[in-house]
Amino acid sequence: MGAAMQKNDSETVFTLITPSAAIATERHGGRAKCLQRLIRLDMPVPPTVALDFDAVQAVATGQLPDLSSLLENMGADTLISVRPSSQDSDWGGPGAILNIGMSDKVHGALVKTHGKAAADALYLRFIQSYSTHVERLDPDAFASATNIAEALETYEDETDEAFPQDRAAQLAAVLRSMARAWQGTTARILREAKGAPADAGLGLVVQKMALGVGKGLCGSGVIQFVNGATGLREVRGRYLCKSQGRDALTEAGERDVMYLTRDERGRSIENVLPQNFADLLRFGDLCRTRLREEMQIEFTIENEQLFILDAVRVARSERANVQIAVALAEDGIITPDVAVCRIPPRVLAELLHSQVDPNDARDVIATGIAASPGAATGRIVFTARDAQASAAHDEDCILVRRETSPEDIRGMHAAKGVLTIRGGITSHAAVIARGLGLPCVVGAADVVISQRDASLTIADGRVFHAGDRITIDGAAGQALAGRVNMLPPELGDSFRTLLGWADAARDIGVRANADTPDDARKAIAFSAEGIGLCRTEHMFIDDDRLLALREMIFADHSDDRRAALDRILPMQRADFTELFRIMLGKPVCIRLLDPPLHEFLPHGRDGARELAEALALPISDVTRRIESLREYNPMLGMRGVRLGLTVPEIYDMQARAIFEATIEASKSGEAVVPEIMIPLISARREVEIVKTRIQAVAAAVRVETGADFSYRLGAMVETPRAALRAGDIAQHAEFLSFGTNDLTQMTYGLSRDDAGRFMGEYVRLGVYEEDPFHRLDNDGVGELLTIGADRGRATNANITLSICGEHGGNPESIAFCRNAGFDYVSCSPFRVPIARLAAAQLAIKERQGA
Amino acid sequence: MGAAMQKNDSETVFTLITPSAAIATERHGGRAKCLQRLIRLDMPVPPTVALDFDAVQAVATGQLPDLSSLLENMGADTLISVRPSSQDSDWGGPGAILNIGMSDKVHGALVKTHGKAAADALYLRFIQSYSTHVERLDPDAFASATNIAEALETYEDETDEAFPQDRAAQLAAVLRSMARAWQGTTARILREAKGAPADAGLGLVVQKMALGVGKGLCGSGVIQFVNGATGLREVRGRYLCKSQGRDALTEAGERDVMYLTRDERGRSIENVLPQNFADLLRFGDLCRTRLREEMQIEFTIENEQLFILDAVRVARSERANVQIAVALAEDGIITPDVAVCRIPPRVLAELLHSQVDPNDARDVIATGIAASPGAATGRIVFTARDAQASAAHDEDCILVRRETSPEDIRGMHAAKGVLTIRGGITSHAAVIARGLGLPCVVGAADVVISQRDASLTIADGRVFHAGDRITIDGAAGQALAGRVNMLPPELGDSFRTLLGWADAARDIGVRANADTPDDARKAIAFSAEGIGLCRTEHMFIDDDRLLALREMIFADHSDDRRAALDRILPMQRADFTELFRIMLGKPVCIRLLDPPLHEFLPHGRDGARELAEALALPISDVTRRIESLREYNPMLGMRGVRLGLTVPEIYDMQARAIFEATIEASKSGEAVVPEIMIPLISARREVEIVKTRIQAVAAAVRVETGADFSYRLGAMVETPRAALRAGDIAQHAEFLSFGTNDLTQMTYGLSRDDAGRFMGEYVRLGVYEEDPFHRLDNDGVGELLTIGADRGRATNANITLSICGEHGGNPESIAFCRNAGFDYVSCSPFRVPIARLAAAQLAIKERQGA
Repeated sequence: MGAAMQKNDSETVFTLITPSAAIATERHGGRAKCLQRLIRLDMPVPPTVALDFDAVQAVATGQLPDLSSLLENMGADTLISVRPSSQDSDWGGPGAILNIGMSDKVHGALVKTHGKAAADALYLRFIQSYSTHVERLDPDAFASATNIAEALETYEDETDEAFPQDRAAQLAAVLRSMARAWQGTTARILREAKGAPADAGLGLVVQKMALGVGKGLCGSGVIQFVNGATGLREVRGRYLCKSQGRDALTEAGERDVMYLTRDERGRSIENVLPQNFADLLRFGDLCRTRLREEMQIEFTIENEQLFILDAVRVARSERANVQIAVALAEDGIITPDVAVCRIPPRVLAELLHSQVDPNDARDVIATGIAASPGAATGRIVFTARDAQASAAHDEDCILVRRETSPEDIRGMHAAKGVLTIRGGITSHAAVIARGLGLPCVVGAADVVISQRDASLTIADGRVFHAGDRITIDGAAGQALAGRVNMLPPELGDSFRTLLGWADAARDIGVRANADTPDDARKAIAFSAEGIGLCRTEHMFIDDDRLLALREMIFADHSDDRRAALDRILPMQRADFTELFRIMLGKPVCIRLLDPPLHEFLPHGRDGARELAEALALPISDVTRRIESLREYNPMLGMRGVRLGLTVPEIYDMQARAIFEATIEASKSGEAVVPEIMIPLISARREVEIVKTRIQAVAAAVRVETGADFSYRLGAMVETPRAALRAGDIAQHAEFLSFGTNDLTQMTYGLSRDDAGRFMGEYVRLGVYEEDPFHRLDNDGVGELLTIGADRGRATNANITLSICGEHGGNPESIAFCRNAGFDYVSCSPFRVPIARLAAAQLAIKERQGA
Repeated sequence: MGAAMQKNDSETVFTLITPSAAIATERHGGRAKCLQRLIRLDMPVPPTVALDFDAVQAVATGQLPDLSSLLENMGADTLISVRPSSQDSDWGGPGAILNIGMSDKVHGALVKTHGKAAADALYLRFIQSYSTHVERLDPDAFASATNIAEALETYEDETDEAFPQDRAAQLAAVLRSMARAWQGTTARILREAKGAPADAGLGLVVQKMALGVGKGLCGSGVIQFVNGATGLREVRGRYLCKSQGRDALTEAGERDVMYLTRDERGRSIENVLPQNFADLLRFGDLCRTRLREEMQIEFTIENEQLFILDAVRVARSERANVQIAVALAEDGIITPDVAVCRIPPRVLAELLHSQVDPNDARDVIATGIAASPGAATGRIVFTARDAQASAAHDEDCILVRRETSPEDIRGMHAAKGVLTIRGGITSHAAVIARGLGLPCVVGAADVVISQRDASLTIADGRVFHAGDRITIDGAAGQALAGRVNMLPPELGDSFRTLLGWADAARDIGVRANADTPDDARKAIAFSAEGIGLCRTEHMFIDDDRLLALREMIFADHSDDRRAALDRILPMQRADFTELFRIMLGKPVCIRLLDPPLHEFLPHGRDGARELAEALALPISDVTRRIESLREYNPMLGMRGVRLGLTVPEIYDMQARAIFEATIEASKSGEAVVPEIMIPLISARREVEIVKTRIQAVAAAVRVETGADFSYRLGAMVETPRAALRAGDIAQHAEFLSFGTNDLTQMTYGLSRDDAGRFMGEYVRLGVYEEDPFHRLDNDGVGELLTIGADRGRATNANITLSICGEHGGNPESIAFCRNAGFDYVSCSPFRVPIARLAAAQLAIKERQGA
């Protein structure tokens, strides 16, 4: 039973922590609970009393309980400490106050038992601590005090009162001070920023001091049994002779430091106090096996007697966190499911990219949106062409653009990092960069590009030119001058083991968005279950194909269009064959051509002239055609299936390429079942018409080749109307894939290309909680997803449902899609591990009934 | 009881029409039913037998019933006629066949009773008619036959058979021929175009002939008692002595014509056959009072004996239709509700045209055929797509085409007038323009179009280019240079009376979209109940204001922006004061500035240079700012409330102008309660923030002026998200107005500017049943309207709901909004009467349980 020490209006306010006391984290805080666990494990914890949240709250409002029974429990004339015990250690709390109970009388007694130096030090330290932290007096006034008398005098000068000599009075003041500090505005803001609720409570633990000073071997320290950077097992820590609390960690200098493990100089706990050391090892092991966590133990040795004061979770890097969790599971201490749930999915991003060494100096030259993580250094180039030229010379480059367009893609491929002046988290540059795993900063609005001078002028007036070396820190959203130290990514075995467990646990599929063989290889490397979105527009950008496509655009008759496309067909077929081979029979969902045709035409007079020469047409014809294809709102224009219906030869050619590649790839490997996805659907009949034509192409290919194959046909749901009419559309679709980028644009009436200009302001004003291109808008776009899924399934119970927008890799989106009963999510290859882990955690937590 | 004359498989197939026979329009057709009504009114209708739809259907498939009992009923050796009787007379049917029963024997008898000339004429005519319409022989072969023998010989030559002499055989052939004609493809397409269902049936009426030839005074004619053009009451018609059927209407020349009413020359029915004339007047009156319609009566006088053969609804202009319905109601023959329901709302468009002021100077640039009345001014466009783009930018345009084709329909919808070089009064352009109530001149053969140069060269050598302003005078068949004075349409008393009744009947409000004092005056003239949408962007286009606005755009600080806007404030205030005064205290819903700022900046180098001079800025600054405001998808960019939140000074100024104008206008007239509408809402907080600022402006104006006023604040629902989140938004909005133009764009992901290029193809392929910008998409956009309305009301039961897109004036949209419980619709002023009438019809039909 809990040792209730005092009742106040029938409420227990003090609880002596014993193995059976009723101590709960949500009422007494994490430290109190952890101390109870240590006590249960028979560790030598000095007597400790927990003060619950309500009691501290009462103290803050002036209702101080009677402290006499508490003090009795600590023993007469002993010193005591008070430490905070909030529910989550991340939420902070006031600093510990030690040595409460020091007074002239106790000082006199300690001189006898511990010597004058120790007694003086303890008293002086307490006066300083009490004056500054409890009475809020000027710390400088006490810092200069070198002896007790001086300090006591200063106290009296400042307060017009004598320094309190009564332990109960001291404790009361300490408790009141700590309770009130918790209520302070700054403390509140800080903890709420870490996720604490507005009514988060503070508990306090009052503990009898183990002194760490005095006669015999004394001191205090911390010890842990893993490396916080790597997560590998080794004894680490710090010990300071004749010290208290966490002095060993905070006091500078090597004075009285003692090593923990055996040291050549002989000054180590292991050498000097082998029994204490053995106990510490044993206690570390107990923590690991019984608390199921790597703990840092705070201990004091008083005259060769070991006391355990506290234990906290070892601070660690994300990499170490994975290593520790996997090791605990491999040792049978936790289950693999628990290990999987211990890793926050988002932090994997950090492990999949190089990082700027946080200890290196930073000369920040531009700040924008952290659009794609990782870090890269290279020479500035201002055009995609220069980027390719750089790559051709094995010269790393950073592509700097006002913004990027599909014409820049090859340049982005060639660059090591991207910086743009405009655009938001889902701008073209950001999306492509994430897909390529390329560090990228967008919307760096504080710099000015002069394309003419090939220069970049930054806010402080400095000018950078093409060829100057800069670094992109995609995690921080910064561009830095010059080269900086990088930390390379290391996946390691533990990472792979963890994801294997995640795959075993999860119940929603994860595919990758992949357009190129490179992407597909990454998808396989990250264990994606297939390709959920293969955009085909990139396949038309090669010089040869681009000219053929442009010829098609300029053709007046279907036959001429077909002839031009026939030249692209073998290349498309080869593209798909290679993709299918890389994907080893896993599903590949290919989106038919989506962008408006004008995106494939040159910009500017020079481009038009070149094209006129290539096509042997008068330039006036070329400019007229370009002009006639211009659109006011390309996002809402003749693209996607609208192109497919009005220039049907394109989809005919693509379908043929897919089918011929299917036959080809199936010859040498597993049977391929391609998925053909029609973009920008807004009405059932669009699917119906394309389906009919594709069936005809399939029939023709079967007859011509004598080979059989299967395929699946589906619709991309990107318009609000497609979601609303999903019931109709599902009559002709075997799958529906929600393209949340465009769906978000249309639901909000918000172009992601243009939103950058005000999105920052909008999030700042709280108009949008978060950029909806970054975090799926559950309320609006999400409702359309749910409506679409429900109606699609109502028509076709076996329909495959998925999401393939940028949101596909976000844990929140995955949770949403899983709740809506989606079959899989698809995201850029680098986000696949994050998605696998997030999906696993959702499944595990649901099974646990959380 | 019905006089069933024959049963075939227990089915009545022939019914002698008697007052009590079971004759139904939906089984025997309209003509049979009308004849029964005439019989019930004791008119001298010759014996008539009705053949129902099933019977005619059976005849078509070869199941000819026994005709003997029918023929007995007609009397032995009498001549008979067969006429079609479809359910709706608009659906057409085969032509009547007269004089069935003529044979050598009957001819001989008629020679004795009616004279040889009459007998010869009847027989010859029957042979010709039977040969060409029943046997489908070459009409030319019979046209040259001048006597019976020759005609009979020709028949025998062509058919190898003697001309049938048996009346029953003749009748059987006629019935079969007419039944089959109804099944023909052309007949089917024609009637389906008029709205007939695929299984529309044909009835036939067999009637004993009154001959109209022979001894004594004989002849036939038609008479009606109103003027078909004006609807005013007067006797009109035509009578031909010695004639049959509708000869009086179709035979050329004045031979044997006799006037109906008293004529100076003495040759009129009224003079010569006063009793017959008195009976005709009496029958006309009976039709009017008992059939409750103005009917045209077809009659025959045989030897001074009057027979009534048929009566049909008088063909009439739309203007006459209104006049007739109102007169019938005013005479107590029909109720005002019935009168209201008799006028198809869309045709009012025809009555609402402006005219070119006849006193204004005319610079005629083209002369053609006056194909559709009314007058309109706009900028020349040469393609349907440009017309749609113009409309999307609220720029009036005139579509100029060599000729139009179905692909141009959407462009015609978008244009204010049409001019074609080719074509006549029934050309595509003319027909469609009349249907749309669009001024149109066709066949202006004296001008030359160059599509390539986008120019129009007129007879005197002047050249007009795309973008030049011209005027179409559809009544005069002329195109005029530039803009000319217009006279507003004259509605007339009956029109006003009808709309008064409509207003009494309807239960949904009708407001007008009006931006200018001119529009507002029209709104008042058409009895709009207020302004449902007053766009304010037009108020910034004046040179003075535009420069101030541009200064604001270029200002870097809020104070500078405010200073620039302060110069616009008095002008805005004056705009609103005038609008409020014109609207006489009726509600005016003002939309805060909506378009993106770049729409107010100049295009091209010259404009930039001028602006640089005006603002005393380097041109590079001007072009850089213009460039920085450029958007990829302006429709989805920084416009509407996004502008309002990021440049809040604009809405502040507008709110102040509105409030100050409210105070000003309320001084001299009724209290004004302005409605302030925030455009492009996608989240609740947008409304909340603007609301707070506007409240602050209102408070400031109240303090400064010491005057009090009320206003209402609401949101324009144009994004799918606003509809989905209407429940949230309604927390801060007193009204929600659905902007269906933008909502349609975003729901479909379809820009109105760009859709022109493929919309024709889409409708042709049946992808969209109809252009969703033309007819509200009930399934998709409509569902969002319903969701928005339901959720808005759930939060705020008193919220005002309305629609203010282009769809607002369409009867189908009004029906939709009424069902969804909207408070009002708002449409362009000219469509207000249409909306009032359509709304009334919906309410009346609902009350009638239809």
